[in-house]
Amino acid sequence: MMSQCRKVLRAAALVFVFSSVGAAMAQDPLPSWNDGATKQGIVDFVAKVTQEGSPDYVPQAERIATFDNDGTLWAEQPIYFQLLFALHRVGVLAPEHPEWKEKEPFASLLKGDVKGALSGGEPAIAEIIMVTHAGMTTDEFEKIVKDWITTAKHPVTKRPILEMTYQPMVELLAYLRANGFKTFIVSGGGIEFMRPWTEQVYGIPPEQVVGSSIKTKLEMRDGKPVLMRLPEINFIDDKAGKPVGINAHIGRRPIAAFGNSDGDRQMLEYTAAGSGARFCLLVHHDDAEREFAYGAESKIGTFSEDLMTEAKTRAWTVVSMKNDWKTVFRPDPSR
Amino acid sequence: MMSQCRKVLRAAALVFVFSSVGAAMAQDPLPSWNDGATKQGIVDFVAKVTQEGSPDYVPQAERIATFDNDGTLWAEQPIYFQLLFALHRVGVLAPEHPEWKEKEPFASLLKGDVKGALSGGEPAIAEIIMVTHAGMTTDEFEKIVKDWITTAKHPVTKRPILEMTYQPMVELLAYLRANGFKTFIVSGGGIEFMRPWTEQVYGIPPEQVVGSSIKTKLEMRDGKPVLMRLPEINFIDDKAGKPVGINAHIGRRPIAAFGNSDGDRQMLEYTAAGSGARFCLLVHHDDAEREFAYGAESKIGTFSEDLMTEAKTRAWTVVSMKNDWKTVFRPDPSR
Repeated sequence: MMSQCRKVLRAAALVFVFSSVGAAMAQDPLPSWNDGATKQGIVDFVAKVTQEGSPDYVPQAERIATFDNDGTLWAEQPIYFQLLFALHRVGVLAPEHPEWKEKEPFASLLKGDVKGALSGGEPAIAEIIMVTHAGMTTDEFEKIVKDWITTAKHPVTKRPILEMTYQPMVELLAYLRANGFKTFIVSGGGIEFMRPWTEQVYGIPPEQVVGSSIKTKLEMRDGKPVLMRLPEINFIDDKAGKPVGINAHIGRRPIAAFGNSDGDRQMLEYTAAGSGARFCLLVHHDDAEREFAYGAESKIGTFSEDLMTEAKTRAWTVVSMKNDWKTVFRPDPSR
Repeated sequence: MMSQCRKVLRAAALVFVFSSVGAAMAQDPLPSWNDGATKQGIVDFVAKVTQEGSPDYVPQAERIATFDNDGTLWAEQPIYFQLLFALHRVGVLAPEHPEWKEKEPFASLLKGDVKGALSGGEPAIAEIIMVTHAGMTTDEFEKIVKDWITTAKHPVTKRPILEMTYQPMVELLAYLRANGFKTFIVSGGGIEFMRPWTEQVYGIPPEQVVGSSIKTKLEMRDGKPVLMRLPEINFIDDKAGKPVGINAHIGRRPIAAFGNSDGDRQMLEYTAAGSGARFCLLVHHDDAEREFAYGAESKIGTFSEDLMTEAKTRAWTVVSMKNDWKTVFRPDPSR
């Protein structure tokens, strides 16, 4: 009885929360954005491309918006979360690999020396990624990712990893979709690392996720066809790879693109080079108090002075997290 | 005045045609399919996966249906239409390539000897494809395809090439979408050869087309980023490649798959191997009078005895074009 009662109370509370959210949305589709030039710029762009008869009108089918993930939709400090996942997997797999005790980068990792392990640079990272991301079926990998993503905590904030997503950006995704946009993720991260949770968290279904990938191969297992994940790079969806990935996957040039680092530069340039109204936005991490402050000097999510100059020259929108965002992180969607 | 009058008359006629079509659709969503087990099987499957509360109910986001193109959505005899396009392009490009007069497979082609040119087998075909499909930007290629597809005629029927699409399958696509399915093309044909016209003809937008591809590369031209098409295979979306392409592009296993040949076998097997209700269909070309009759002996669109046996064993639907289709080709959409 008690449990039944609690369920009803929870349901009632949820209805209340959702109606409040609904009412707030009706007044302001971007409640977590402070009023100002940045927010106004977003609203103005959406108004002019959706207003029939406007010289900037864009038919619904062509309203493609692409979003980087790491540093744009969720945090990326102190290291990419997919690397956290890989490091966790090394621990899980270690008992099957006694040889790792003597072999770098695994030996350092297993001693808890992450910095030492990563000192091997890209080859070391690639090796960690391959042993943790390949050698299983796509269905198995999906389950492994789901299990981790729903239990992992951020190493600094100790919050659930899915609470490290940005509330203002989640609102922006919903706002664009409510205005007939189709929203895509275009990330340097692994496509199959993102797909298991992007629908729940961002409202973006698997078929609208573009990312880096390893090769897969059709095999029969117990008389059933499965796709095995091979330890071989298929595609790197970063920098000049982003327009290539966009074309391969979407087949249309976006009219709006959202990023936060040098890795997104070519995506924004490619978007801006189309004809008609375009919108390009970069999130600048300048909020050491509520999140992290980094830019030109950071190895992860580098926002170079060159990129800042280009953004100013081309009148791209640069979001100051400190000034433009009322809240940063979103509440855990599962609570 | 006359022209104004004609326009009004045409508009009125169109309204009349569309209302009739609308009324017919309300009665029967598949008017070009003869009543019988095949049609009933399609309707029953759609009913059970869309009926809330049914044990076979599938949430809308998971209603993924994949369609082969050549031989399934449009004809493929006497040769794949993309090869017709390539042969046409060789003629257009010949003045820039005087060396082709002495070089096979081009020399035979330019003498009108298609059979001789293709006698070089796959390497000859690959060479023809590369010189006609690479070396331009993606935007330029899109324009070339659009120009050809709207003017080309079928070599046997002399009908516009876009009238060689199948009316019953176009109805089936619309019927599935009306029931919350997301429809994808998964074809061995070139992804960028299909995208410029699939939305108009099948109602399938570019981002829902999966196909074979060549590599592209980001380059600057007149200060603007463009994607150059390179003479290098990126991916072959056929046979065991189809499940790989589906996973890479869609990231979900289809619940329904539609094909017509051995090239679709793995796609159907992969679809059937998922849990819950599944629907697999093969179009059998047995209608020499209205289209073409071919199967096990055909080099193009081979439907082997092995595949027929598997279809029967697994209770896949085999469409007899002769018996199941009231009409075969669809009217030119631009008329």
